[in-house]
Amino acid sequence: MNKKITTLLFLSFLFLLPLFGQKAKYIFFMIGDGMGLNQVNIAEVYSAELAGRNGVFPLVFTQFPYATFGTSYSLSHGVTDSGAGGTALAVGKKTRNGVIGMDSAATVPYKSIAYAAKAKGMRVGIATSVSIDHATPASFYANRPDRNMYYEIGLDLIKSNFDFFAGAGFIKPDKTFDNKDAPSLFPQFEKAGYQIVKGYRAFQDAKKTQNGKIILTNMDDTDQSALKYAIDQKAGDLNLAEITAAAIEALTLNDKGDGFFLMVEGGKIDWACHANDGATAIHEVLDFNESVKLAFEFYKKHPEETLIIVTADHETGGIGIGNGSSRLNTKALNGQVVSQGELSTHIRELRKTNPNASWEEVKSVLQQNLGLWSTAKVAENDEKQLFTAYERSFVKHENETEKSLYANDDKIAALSISILNKISSVSWASGGHSAAYIPIYAIGAGAELFRHKMENVDIPKKIAMAAGLEF
Amino acid sequence: MNKKITTLLFLSFLFLLPLFGQKAKYIFFMIGDGMGLNQVNIAEVYSAELAGRNGVFPLVFTQFPYATFGTSYSLSHGVTDSGAGGTALAVGKKTRNGVIGMDSAATVPYKSIAYAAKAKGMRVGIATSVSIDHATPASFYANRPDRNMYYEIGLDLIKSNFDFFAGAGFIKPDKTFDNKDAPSLFPQFEKAGYQIVKGYRAFQDAKKTQNGKIILTNMDDTDQSALKYAIDQKAGDLNLAEITAAAIEALTLNDKGDGFFLMVEGGKIDWACHANDGATAIHEVLDFNESVKLAFEFYKKHPEETLIIVTADHETGGIGIGNGSSRLNTKALNGQVVSQGELSTHIRELRKTNPNASWEEVKSVLQQNLGLWSTAKVAENDEKQLFTAYERSFVKHENETEKSLYANDDKIAALSISILNKISSVSWASGGHSAAYIPIYAIGAGAELFRHKMENVDIPKKIAMAAGLEF
Repeated sequence: MNKKITTLLFLSFLFLLPLFGQKAKYIFFMIGDGMGLNQVNIAEVYSAELAGRNGVFPLVFTQFPYATFGTSYSLSHGVTDSGAGGTALAVGKKTRNGVIGMDSAATVPYKSIAYAAKAKGMRVGIATSVSIDHATPASFYANRPDRNMYYEIGLDLIKSNFDFFAGAGFIKPDKTFDNKDAPSLFPQFEKAGYQIVKGYRAFQDAKKTQNGKIILTNMDDTDQSALKYAIDQKAGDLNLAEITAAAIEALTLNDKGDGFFLMVEGGKIDWACHANDGATAIHEVLDFNESVKLAFEFYKKHPEETLIIVTADHETGGIGIGNGSSRLNTKALNGQVVSQGELSTHIRELRKTNPNASWEEVKSVLQQNLGLWSTAKVAENDEKQLFTAYERSFVKHENETEKSLYANDDKIAALSISILNKISSVSWASGGHSAAYIPIYAIGAGAELFRHKMENVDIPKKIAMAAGLEF
Repeated sequence: MNKKITTLLFLSFLFLLPLFGQKAKYIFFMIGDGMGLNQVNIAEVYSAELAGRNGVFPLVFTQFPYATFGTSYSLSHGVTDSGAGGTALAVGKKTRNGVIGMDSAATVPYKSIAYAAKAKGMRVGIATSVSIDHATPASFYANRPDRNMYYEIGLDLIKSNFDFFAGAGFIKPDKTFDNKDAPSLFPQFEKAGYQIVKGYRAFQDAKKTQNGKIILTNMDDTDQSALKYAIDQKAGDLNLAEITAAAIEALTLNDKGDGFFLMVEGGKIDWACHANDGATAIHEVLDFNESVKLAFEFYKKHPEETLIIVTADHETGGIGIGNGSSRLNTKALNGQVVSQGELSTHIRELRKTNPNASWEEVKSVLQQNLGLWSTAKVAENDEKQLFTAYERSFVKHENETEKSLYANDDKIAALSISILNKISSVSWASGGHSAAYIPIYAIGAGAELFRHKMENVDIPKKIAMAAGLEF
């Protein structure tokens, strides 16, 4: 054989190696709930504006070598909910809105990719910033006709035998779906071999063994339905990056080379977008990015064997970047230092302690917490609207609230956030989900499978292909 | 050498061939002006709903093997205009809004990829559904400080010596930017060797020679600023697919293997979105898809040597799919049979012929043209708003208009279209552009370069790389 040709063929072979190389052994499946393309984009625009630049300041995952997008519609609706959306990503099949890991008629349970990973001997972790029984994490380990069957979803956790779970806690640990008292889930978890640790400190202190299964939740005196919004977190509050670090530590403890499958959900991007609270949503995306950074650090140590997928289950709120002018002003969101929910609490407390507070006093609360009248210039008409809401609340004592999916906020809080968003050139279509595409970013072993527009159900199928899972 | 290894190496080589294969020789650079990801998505959702299905009915280009997205911001603004946006795509450099093919200070002319293709001996075509001197096409052949220098841009066409131009016509063929009378462009075009053909029939009948340069415009008695909206076109009206077919024919006539570079712009997606006219925008996207189909047919004949890129210069209107409910209703847009501009004309004509027309008569116009009260159920409050607008117009004779960037439409027309959009679960953020990502789809030689999130300026650089152009 001609030597030149042999050399050429050999070079070709080297070049091809990655294609036929090792299967993905360490899988990060990272899901920003409600994180459409615009949510990512605006987080980058905001970061650039804060740094005094036009353009974008890239998150870690937007620099991945593969980026594409996909549909999110469910079998029943043009706009999916997190049940059908999570199910599509977990099991690779579309279903009816509201269903977890089953067909539309809720008669056939579907096997998720997490079970496929477990069957192959990989360790499995399910982590989220909301409750462990919430729709997205549940889709990976439960099979239930209704996403609201929190107790029953909790029972499925035991069935899964997965190695690691983490999140704020459990919403209904002792009440069944039909609202009957039931034996608490926690002793059942322990009986099934799970060590329950509360808070990151407790996790660090816990005695961990290679085959020990762990459920990490927030402390007892905290909200079990979700971690605090990133924008509201103080030092010592459990956060998603800590949860992700804990997951990686637990899943790689005395690693004998079996690998792992880890799902991490940034669950409150969705919540902030339901409330049309732009600054809080951006901070949630940036916070989610901190978890992706940890995955990326891991990837850098095992580049040939790690696959990171970052995606979303759907878009929430129909957020838009720009509302008419060519000049953006997202930096005005930097004046906002608390979420809409936290601002509501402040205003409600003021109403209790000082029910006849003056307009100047209320203005001062809005200035301190949102930067209105300081970093964000308020138009006359908007101030008029705010004053009217103030009058109704503090003069006529008509307590008004603004309901969104996950919150029931004070009207003044909701209105002032809405005005700040307008000032910041952020627009919203609604308080619900939209049918916008979901973004898909990939790096590592098998990432080259994520290069064209796809259906959401293709994502777990391709991950399975990359990892050689039977799915 | 071991036979097995030889075989393996040879197989690897075969697999790699496309990577080191022929450079792109036939380049289609297809730009949907204002076509963000949601504009494409909603065209597919609408097509699926019309076919009685949930989900999406794919356009030809969304099935390309590579799909990703990119930024669109300009050097001066978070939200680009079509001048800086077109320039970024044409020359690979960001500039100030409003500038065509120059730096922000408008002192340095930038060389576009079309010139690079010409320099390599390829034939070059520039085609659009708006005027040939409009910002996007102009960016490929002109270098001017202001996109509104239509006459001067026309002069640059001569300088380019490109082989084929097509579009509606020229906006100011005999008035300079400072509004002075000037010698008409057309004799100058002819003197420079261009054959001017008006209409597709004239193109077909024209005597074409291999080196003959052609400018194809619309007929004399038509709007020279743009082709009719696809939704308004009748048989015999010049359309973008005919222009694309003419371009391919002209650029491949007696092809000796030099190849071509063809830019095709779907220019009125943007215009429809500026007017927040959903049905018209969707028809523009579907119409643009017809041109991409022709490129794809060409690709199928020359798959190893053809590169098709489909992208956009920016998003317009901040269109959202869904406005709160999980059920979409885009099929209600099917009742709309004319653009907002055409509907305005109908209403203005009615006002002339019957200035005291009854509410029933006006309702009937809206029913016939938009399907209101037939295929689209109108809410009481919306009808009340329409009735108030009717009263102002036909009872009090206060003629109201609604101005958008490219239109000044009748108020009743704009209001009824806005109501139809709401009924159809379509939302809009504004009448301007937004900073949303631009979609990027690729197939053919070099398509694998388009697989990660990028800046708009990377697109022409990668095309140049795929084609081996000095750029």
